[in-house]
Amino acid sequence: MARIAVVAGDGIGPEVVAQARKVLDAVLPGVQATEYDLGAARWHRTGEVLPDSVLAELAGHDAILLGAVGDPTVPPGVLERGLLLKLRFAFDQYVNLRPSRLWPGVAGPLNTVKPGEVDLVVVREGTEGLYAGAGGSLHRDTPAEVATEESLNTRHGVERVIRDAFARAGRRERRKVTLVHKTNVLTHAGSLWARTFDAVAAEHPDVATEYQHVDAAAMFLVTQPQRYDVVVTDNLFGDILTDIAAAVTGGIGLAASGCINPEGAYPSMFEPVHGSAPDIAGQGIADPVAAVLSAALLLEQFGHGEAAARVNAAVAAELASRTPGVTLRTEEVGDRLAAHAVA
Amino acid sequence: MARIAVVAGDGIGPEVVAQARKVLDAVLPGVQATEYDLGAARWHRTGEVLPDSVLAELAGHDAILLGAVGDPTVPPGVLERGLLLKLRFAFDQYVNLRPSRLWPGVAGPLNTVKPGEVDLVVVREGTEGLYAGAGGSLHRDTPAEVATEESLNTRHGVERVIRDAFARAGRRERRKVTLVHKTNVLTHAGSLWARTFDAVAAEHPDVATEYQHVDAAAMFLVTQPQRYDVVVTDNLFGDILTDIAAAVTGGIGLAASGCINPEGAYPSMFEPVHGSAPDIAGQGIADPVAAVLSAALLLEQFGHGEAAARVNAAVAAELASRTPGVTLRTEEVGDRLAAHAVA
Ligand SMILES: CC(C)[C@H](C(=O)O)[C@@H](O)C(=O)O
Ligand SMILES: CC(C)[C@H](C(=O)O)[C@@H](O)C(=O)O
Repeated sequence: MARIAVVAGDGIGPEVVAQARKVLDAVLPGVQATEYDLGAARWHRTGEVLPDSVLAELAGHDAILLGAVGDPTVPPGVLERGLLLKLRFAFDQYVNLRPSRLWPGVAGPLNTVKPGEVDLVVVREGTEGLYAGAGGSLHRDTPAEVATEESLNTRHGVERVIRDAFARAGRRERRKVTLVHKTNVLTHAGSLWARTFDAVAAEHPDVATEYQHVDAAAMFLVTQPQRYDVVVTDNLFGDILTDIAAAVTGGIGLAASGCINPEGAYPSMFEPVHGSAPDIAGQGIADPVAAVLSAALLLEQFGHGEAAARVNAAVAAELASRTPGVTLRTEEVGDRLAAHAVA
Repeated sequence: MARIAVVAGDGIGPEVVAQARKVLDAVLPGVQATEYDLGAARWHRTGEVLPDSVLAELAGHDAILLGAVGDPTVPPGVLERGLLLKLRFAFDQYVNLRPSRLWPGVAGPLNTVKPGEVDLVVVREGTEGLYAGAGGSLHRDTPAEVATEESLNTRHGVERVIRDAFARAGRRERRKVTLVHKTNVLTHAGSLWARTFDAVAAEHPDVATEYQHVDAAAMFLVTQPQRYDVVVTDNLFGDILTDIAAAVTGGIGLAASGCINPEGAYPSMFEPVHGSAPDIAGQGIADPVAAVLSAALLLEQFGHGEAAARVNAAVAAELASRTPGVTLRTEEVGDRLAAHAVA
């Protein structure tokens, strides 16, 4: 793995991405990184979200490391649809990977789980469903207005992400995949997901399976997050469930994600789940752990499992050593993580 | 309010409904109740889910009190689409009301909230969205299969449920309504919901408002459920969010719901959120509190606010007096609640 495009973005994005690069450089010297200026700041300055020329340049990289984009001054949807979702769709990043662990030392909101007990990964479909952008409206701003949103699901898209989930489960200790959908109401898409899941499951007799409706899964993520190993689900359900999983494991401040094109035909993208947090930007107090863990996902995706493991170990040591209530310094955390990861 | 149709249903349904009726009879003597045999048992016996003649008879009642329907032996969708959703749509029950309170004495899973701090109600749209049944598939069981689900939203349907939410908020202490949607991705439906919300909000300057994306709301329901008063949202988001709200306030065993046609053109339906729980059916150990709280919602809907308050007070006393780990007896709980409600 050689060429990384770095989109530091807005708010705390540049601060946390700097630490992720520091750690990457420490464990894998020689990574080539090119910076791209995208996000709210660029949009304000130039009106551009993602010029075709930049998209083409990004396509020439192996991976994208993204900090955070967005700002309250940008109208909703502009950067989401124009940048984040555009990249996911243009680069066919159909595996949206979101691990959640309750790390020792982290005080989660649940009194029912102990650190170390929760270790799950949501494999969220990233290129279909209600995110397809298929919808419209008629008679806008009249009493007769009607608005639609269409969830599009293909056997192609569903099967490949389910295959990825089973492959991941096969490499994990518990070897279990939970399919989450709403087959009792969304009968057409639900049936496609369920039949495809069963077909792929039949090829993996060593992997245990279960099915849950999305409402039940949302509940069990709160009451028994320990029960999950790999969860595979559609784009929108995955969006919701991964925020619940983050919440029960200490917040989105620790949540990493990868938008992955497993075949490597296009670059994959790695980014913390948190946003640009303009309220604390520029103060050097943002927690870079989610960005660093996203860099670890990047390492893992490109076959540097040993380096990824060292980063994860550094994060574990960092989190275990924190004193609740003490304000952290972004740079210092990055220094500690980099030092620990090469020690 | 005079005529109630009772659908005791399957599993623990009859056991908990009996207690709800006991309490109703105690606080409002003279309620006329007619029993209807619907659910898994009837389907197994006769193949019928909801005959037109029964639907017509139900329409002649003021309200329906439902225990629980369903059984693992019934194929998914049969009773959901054929009975529960059929009733919601046929009787235009567009307000799906789901209160969540963390009652004193109830041990919730969160270490961040104290009993009494959480008191929210989700006003879930009940007749539109992805529940409309608009979808289909092509090339089934081939690699070319495509399946769609369409979310249908009308100004008519969105406005009336938002109006209901504001009216409810106006009668509550905190007077706050949170709109939950996903406007940054579901731009057409999201825009309809957001514009309608703003228009109705302008008529209610005394009610505070906020907007949250569904993923953020799912997270905040876990980390800060105290922040919510009235939440208004679409059918599917409401399905998911109410299970999270139930989970953080002690589980669906305590969660009540009403499927309401506010105009009274059709009967409204009141039912515990929990299912038929076949694993504990027939043992007399199911908690009837959710069914009893659903009966309280029924009382409130029909103008018996004082009787509803007495039922709620009885539930509060019951829950505060429970010893963790002691198995309850369904009948005894019903007796205590009835006695307390009239004391
Ligand atoms: C910003 C938004 C478009 C995005 C999504 O909905 O996927 C975000 O919530 C996420 O989870 O990455
Ligand atoms: C049983 C199912 C159709 C139903 C729903 O999705 O509305 C249930 O989950 C609920 O919340 O009442």
